[in-house]
Amino acid sequence: MTDTRTETDSMGAIAVPADRLWGAQTQRSLENFRIGSERMPLPIIHALGIIKAAAARTNTRLGGLDPSLATAIANAAQEVADGLLDAEFPLVVWQTGSGTQTNMNANEVIANRASEALGGRRGTKAPVHPNDHVNLSQSSNDTFPTALHIAAAREVFSRLLPALRAMHADLAAKAAGWDTIIKIGRTHTQDATPLTLGQEFSGYAAHLQDGIARIEMALPGILALAQGGTAVGTGLNAPKGFAEAIAIEIATSTGLNFITAPNKFAALAGQDALLFLHGAIEGMATSLYKIASDIRLLGSGPRAGLGELALPENEPGSSIMPGKVNPTQAEALTQVCARVLGNHATLAFANSQGQFELNVYRPVMAHAFLQSVGLLADAATSFTEHLLAGLQPRRDNIARGVQNSLMLVTALAPTIGYDTAAKIAKTAHEQGLTLREAAIASGAVTAEDYDRIVDPARMLGPDHEPQ
Amino acid sequence: MTDTRTETDSMGAIAVPADRLWGAQTQRSLENFRIGSERMPLPIIHALGIIKAAAARTNTRLGGLDPSLATAIANAAQEVADGLLDAEFPLVVWQTGSGTQTNMNANEVIANRASEALGGRRGTKAPVHPNDHVNLSQSSNDTFPTALHIAAAREVFSRLLPALRAMHADLAAKAAGWDTIIKIGRTHTQDATPLTLGQEFSGYAAHLQDGIARIEMALPGILALAQGGTAVGTGLNAPKGFAEAIAIEIATSTGLNFITAPNKFAALAGQDALLFLHGAIEGMATSLYKIASDIRLLGSGPRAGLGELALPENEPGSSIMPGKVNPTQAEALTQVCARVLGNHATLAFANSQGQFELNVYRPVMAHAFLQSVGLLADAATSFTEHLLAGLQPRRDNIARGVQNSLMLVTALAPTIGYDTAAKIAKTAHEQGLTLREAAIASGAVTAEDYDRIVDPARMLGPDHEPQ
Amino acid sequence: MTDTRTETDSMGAIAVPADRLWGAQTQRSLENFRIGSERMPLPIIHALGIIKAAAARTNTRLGGLDPSLATAIANAAQEVADGLLDAEFPLVVWQTGSGTQTNMNANEVIANRASEALGGRRGTKAPVHPNDHVNLSQSSNDTFPTALHIAAAREVFSRLLPALRAMHADLAAKAAGWDTIIKIGRTHTQDATPLTLGQEFSGYAAHLQDGIARIEMALPGILALAQGGTAVGTGLNAPKGFAEAIAIEIATSTGLNFITAPNKFAALAGQDALLFLHGAIEGMATSLYKIASDIRLLGSGPRAGLGELALPENEPGSSIMPGKVNPTQAEALTQVCARVLGNHATLAFANSQGQFELNVYRPVMAHAFLQSVGLLADAATSFTEHLLAGLQPRRDNIARGVQNSLMLVTALAPTIGYDTAAKIAKTAHEQGLTLREAAIASGAVTAEDYDRIVDPARMLGPDHEPQ
Amino acid sequence: MTDTRTETDSMGAIAVPADRLWGAQTQRSLENFRIGSERMPLPIIHALGIIKAAAARTNTRLGGLDPSLATAIANAAQEVADGLLDAEFPLVVWQTGSGTQTNMNANEVIANRASEALGGRRGTKAPVHPNDHVNLSQSSNDTFPTALHIAAAREVFSRLLPALRAMHADLAAKAAGWDTIIKIGRTHTQDATPLTLGQEFSGYAAHLQDGIARIEMALPGILALAQGGTAVGTGLNAPKGFAEAIAIEIATSTGLNFITAPNKFAALAGQDALLFLHGAIEGMATSLYKIASDIRLLGSGPRAGLGELALPENEPGSSIMPGKVNPTQAEALTQVCARVLGNHATLAFANSQGQFELNVYRPVMAHAFLQSVGLLADAATSFTEHLLAGLQPRRDNIARGVQNSLMLVTALAPTIGYDTAAKIAKTAHEQGLTLREAAIASGAVTAEDYDRIVDPARMLGPDHEPQ
Repeated sequence: MTDTRTETDSMGAIAVPADRLWGAQTQRSLENFRIGSERMPLPIIHALGIIKAAAARTNTRLGGLDPSLATAIANAAQEVADGLLDAEFPLVVWQTGSGTQTNMNANEVIANRASEALGGRRGTKAPVHPNDHVNLSQSSNDTFPTALHIAAAREVFSRLLPALRAMHADLAAKAAGWDTIIKIGRTHTQDATPLTLGQEFSGYAAHLQDGIARIEMALPGILALAQGGTAVGTGLNAPKGFAEAIAIEIATSTGLNFITAPNKFAALAGQDALLFLHGAIEGMATSLYKIASDIRLLGSGPRAGLGELALPENEPGSSIMPGKVNPTQAEALTQVCARVLGNHATLAFANSQGQFELNVYRPVMAHAFLQSVGLLADAATSFTEHLLAGLQPRRDNIARGVQNSLMLVTALAPTIGYDTAAKIAKTAHEQGLTLREAAIASGAVTAEDYDRIVDPARMLGPDHEPQ
Repeated sequence: MTDTRTETDSMGAIAVPADRLWGAQTQRSLENFRIGSERMPLPIIHALGIIKAAAARTNTRLGGLDPSLATAIANAAQEVADGLLDAEFPLVVWQTGSGTQTNMNANEVIANRASEALGGRRGTKAPVHPNDHVNLSQSSNDTFPTALHIAAAREVFSRLLPALRAMHADLAAKAAGWDTIIKIGRTHTQDATPLTLGQEFSGYAAHLQDGIARIEMALPGILALAQGGTAVGTGLNAPKGFAEAIAIEIATSTGLNFITAPNKFAALAGQDALLFLHGAIEGMATSLYKIASDIRLLGSGPRAGLGELALPENEPGSSIMPGKVNPTQAEALTQVCARVLGNHATLAFANSQGQFELNVYRPVMAHAFLQSVGLLADAATSFTEHLLAGLQPRRDNIARGVQNSLMLVTALAPTIGYDTAAKIAKTAHEQGLTLREAAIASGAVTAEDYDRIVDPARMLGPDHEPQ
Repeated sequence: MTDTRTETDSMGAIAVPADRLWGAQTQRSLENFRIGSERMPLPIIHALGIIKAAAARTNTRLGGLDPSLATAIANAAQEVADGLLDAEFPLVVWQTGSGTQTNMNANEVIANRASEALGGRRGTKAPVHPNDHVNLSQSSNDTFPTALHIAAAREVFSRLLPALRAMHADLAAKAAGWDTIIKIGRTHTQDATPLTLGQEFSGYAAHLQDGIARIEMALPGILALAQGGTAVGTGLNAPKGFAEAIAIEIATSTGLNFITAPNKFAALAGQDALLFLHGAIEGMATSLYKIASDIRLLGSGPRAGLGELALPENEPGSSIMPGKVNPTQAEALTQVCARVLGNHATLAFANSQGQFELNVYRPVMAHAFLQSVGLLADAATSFTEHLLAGLQPRRDNIARGVQNSLMLVTALAPTIGYDTAAKIAKTAHEQGLTLREAAIASGAVTAEDYDRIVDPARMLGPDHEPQ
Repeated sequence: MTDTRTETDSMGAIAVPADRLWGAQTQRSLENFRIGSERMPLPIIHALGIIKAAAARTNTRLGGLDPSLATAIANAAQEVADGLLDAEFPLVVWQTGSGTQTNMNANEVIANRASEALGGRRGTKAPVHPNDHVNLSQSSNDTFPTALHIAAAREVFSRLLPALRAMHADLAAKAAGWDTIIKIGRTHTQDATPLTLGQEFSGYAAHLQDGIARIEMALPGILALAQGGTAVGTGLNAPKGFAEAIAIEIATSTGLNFITAPNKFAALAGQDALLFLHGAIEGMATSLYKIASDIRLLGSGPRAGLGELALPENEPGSSIMPGKVNPTQAEALTQVCARVLGNHATLAFANSQGQFELNVYRPVMAHAFLQSVGLLADAATSFTEHLLAGLQPRRDNIARGVQNSLMLVTALAPTIGYDTAAKIAKTAHEQGLTLREAAIASGAVTAEDYDRIVDPARMLGPDHEPQ
């Protein structure tokens, strides 16, 4: 049995654990929404702290709020922003679709904390009232989307982009370092004309570089904040200039270029910019999936696979097969990607379901978006550190693949024509000959010409220096 | 310039091509919905013919309809059912969400056709009226879902299941025929303990068999028909007993065990049974995807791939690389599967969006469902006939994979322990030894014991006869 | 700084917290996979306990395992099954795709626990070895899929189905209790012919009943267990009869009818049965979505909405609008459904990606599946208890809707024809008349006939008793 | 029986309809891929014409190709580009995943056409050879992705963006025109504070404007062309400078700013830029879905719905309910959106499945992408012309909603506090009073203050001029 105190809201009184800062509405939500274990993501909580501090300062400046209350609110809100009060935010994702209960959780915690700081007693709503002071000039309907944008921007800037850039740097270094290792190309999983391992990894690096650029391109959209729209987008009960002023406050405290959204009705009715940004992230995930799958297959073996890459051995691979080593980092990353694609389906669905002046699928969108960002950041980092860093070419296997290839015949086509070249390749394949044997036997090319033309080092493209 | 005649509906008069049987509402839809080129799928049109014929007979028996009109309607409807009037159904999928316009298209075509047969003139709605006679005791709201169930059941029974059964038969035959070909197993794409090629294909066959069983399990749900619910599910304006009687009529004319849906409100408000059935089909698609991908990779090469299977050469594979052969049937099938997964997303979304007494996403559901069924049936057939039928093992490559494998060490683990066995495998891998060399050198096992225990033919499981 | 001890595996030695039961491989995974915060779901951990206990008993009976070791293993495993050792399972979902690391976590914890019980010291692997004894006759490749099936079956049976049945019971009771309340029907969101509120809720109840039946139909598929297939499906290193015997053991200890999967190759290569079952669950989610959305809209208002239902007031609805009450339970449930649809996309994607003898997307599938089950169970319970239980009809608004309706004209159509009836409805609409006024003014029907025919209580369908 | 002639390729001879321009490989594809009825989209065919003409000119300039052959090829290719030879492209989407068969279809048709123009005979490959001349310096692997980018860019520029801009213009005009019509706001579907109908539509217009901007932002990515990468990305067999030169040719002939892709390996291995662009389009679809759903609900009734908007009556709405009018354009548009979301799932899945030097899911991506673009363009146009153009406010209903609203109490909260305001609203709701009655009865506000403060015209936000 925990000690309790009584808190009240417009529905009446309710018992709350005495040692907790939250109030009546948080407690009601705890009791009415016993659904799952997914807590509202902490980046959202911290963003609410940022908003409440900024609102207190803005409210004082634009006239409404007593400076001493504002200071107390801003101090308490800063503690929320700094993660010092995380334990006071017990609500799950699966609550009201506007995030009102989490907004009230923040209002209640900050009001109690600030009231105590000013000599008041928790639960009395005095001198700081959760709605009349902490939530002043705000509504959940503009505050929660604002928190979502702040949280998303901070997570993408501080976690996802650095992780992707580090992965890009590793791939780009390999592209440069492995540019003299000639290997067989594969299209349709079938042997094709050669390229260098460095060229192959330059493609991976390009996927990363372009994907990062797309995320950066999509980011500015979420720097536009709904704050100031209040209940339905009109800004009722917020002072003139509030929207612009609080955006500047938030920009200052976060160091990110937040602005006020030009149209608050659209900002409350959907999370279009967030969905667009997640599209960029999902696209990045499809590229990472392809890269991880390639490396997994190129590292297959050790004896009966493609065997062109040696992956680092990080842990025993099998509980029954001794000595087995598996591409586990690739598996973790590709599973994360599978999760990101599902998150996108949830986000697109949710964003289509706004009604009238509000979209009420915000907590699930917050959860899905921030999960994608966090998982992809972590998995990319893990993949870079525990797989890419130790990745090595298996030069003997790579060389063997090039030597045996029939698709070097492509180099002959401009000289002897496609149809004749095709016949040579088929003959070699059917009779188990080398390409050189079949080519010379065909009479279409002399041994000298063959050796001059069919040189893998000269088949790396018009812009690649022969080696 | 086409000759026109005037048709009317409750909105007024409109010009219709004189040589067409359709009427005013079809014409309005043509003009108001110039969206895409996807016509309402023909199986829906044919099912509407079946329904209208059954309704005419049922209406006569239960009292409402003059027998001579009924006969004329049933004859015209049978022509629709038989595909003789396909050209009279020009409407696209992207129309009203109840399918009302296509239901009226059927009513109008049949009314004009039947009126002419009885000596009337098209466009006069006499003696056969599209609403009062052809649509008697019906609403689009019960007719379109009924048509969707009939079309879906017929397509699954007559096209999809036979295609899947033929594919299963081929795979099962290979499972039996290839059961003495021992090959390396692969888990995590890495070399693992051996199995036979027949065992591997027995897994493929099991996926098919179980997937077929799931489709068969899910099928009965769509044999329950909405017909008789009329406008909102109450059955207003349909005579007592109509729902049961028309279900029997439809069962008789199709040879499938259709019954009347127990609750018409649910039958109009969603397509739950159809979504469930599509889930089974989507699941089948994921299995087919896996099988086709495996065969593609097992057939990779010809020189620098896994090279365990030889795929039939059906066409030149490359416009630039002479002699290249690609796993094109696997590519067509896996692309179809990618489409089926997208169709499922559309169906699930659409089924969640019913409102009150009706779901108005029926044409898009019809289109997505029937596309999945048709494409999967065709692609499975093509894959069976053009790939599986000519598939051959490459026994030399297969044997080499087993001989070189380090994972045969697993057979030693029960005797020498997991940890010692792991050391042997690692030593062999690092020093490029055969497993036998490393094992004997380790001192943990004698040459005699090694040869007795590490016999791939004895590593095929407790229930597999050693060969 | 925590005290540590040294544990070893085939990669070498590693420091492990001294007070923890886990061993080297768990520790490696902790360090190599710092990805997200989603722990491997506890139902999986508990299922592994069930399996390890059953395996110990089966191994003893079929010959391989010393009975005293088996008893110690079974006791320790039972503690895992009972949730007493949850804190010893720290690994996240995002690890190797076979779940090997979590299987080894279980092997290590049980080995240390059992060794200590037998007088050994943790970290020595003696007298109980994690691989040679706890994992005897098993591989992660058969154990993890088995754990997934056990976990899924237990969660669906014990949590999801009871929650759905309770919701169905409530809806069915309302269907019966409200069958005399006549209301306007709505199709295309537009006024349609009437039905009773009970009929409307009978549709909801039917969605639940049919959806439950589909889940029950899909359930048996996951009662077939992969256990006994070991590394690649052959059952290498498992004694003959092991697969059948352990399935019986597991069936006995869980009370569910588990059997051994007929084909182990397919059982390792995919989770087809699980995907099919999730399809049934996703379908249920689409129905719940529709029902919750309807109730939300029928409860819209209180003054400027449809206003046919009064939802219980559970908490203040708005931080800025005093007195507002929102359909929060509907919002929580529909958000959960949006998550379930995304989970299905993840599952279908993942199930298509098996390669050769194994699918390595199992942890993400476990996470997505069990999340759907848990969330849907909780949200359905919450919706039933906090919304449905207190739901009330607003009879005055409902009656007004029927009185004003123009679609009662449908009852006249059989008598005066569709076209004439349409003209009356249009006139009433355009001139703001009641339907009765317009009908009589049209001359098509007398006042007496109108009052006799257009009686909402007689428009509830041929099988509904007039009231 | 059609007359046939013999065509040959590297597989041998095959009979082709004598009156057709296509050759052996097209014919083989026709026979080997009898899958579905979805033809390769015509924009792809036309883009191939553009490419082949540009390649002929570039090949001549960079040395390889006889000018007279080049002119004949360019002329024939232009006919393909202009749609004059559409009937010569019979292949379906479901073919090889590189689009090789469609590329060869173009090569064959153009070779035969050009050969005939130069006095040759079709089927002889002389003087123009499909591979050696028409396909010179190209591979399907760079040509098909290039065609996909060209087709996508042209369709988005010429069809989608104009349709969206026209819709935006209509919405923006309504936002301006209806800015004095004060209506009730709705959040959570519940009555909220007021706004103007113009403000509501300004939100819709903002969704469009921002969505268009996102599409425009994502577009440049697909202006980078793979052409010049040839088989695996190296550019083997293309002359130095080819990639840059052909991009300029294509830019010139299309009037769009195409450039050569900086990294050809990535350009062949995925369609990342296309997926990103489709993400923007999918996002637009979710906005359109929300807007169409709102208008549908605001137009619900006519008697028992929200009734704030009157939708144009375009066709009879029901086959059974006379006089019914339905929001059919909204239904068509929302169904299209449901299809677009499914297409996105297909595209994301497909883009993740590249392997090594090629992604072989290109035809299904082409089909899904171009379907989304075409359908959304058509549906947006149809919605604008047939719904928005005739949309009218129902001022009486709108006014009634504002008068009755309880949420006007929000205007009092800054004066009397949230808790007191909440009590007033609750009392009014429970006792059926007007808000004014309850407020004055509470004693918290005088009648004079109430009338001054609670003025809907002053509740439209700090930046909205009171009216």
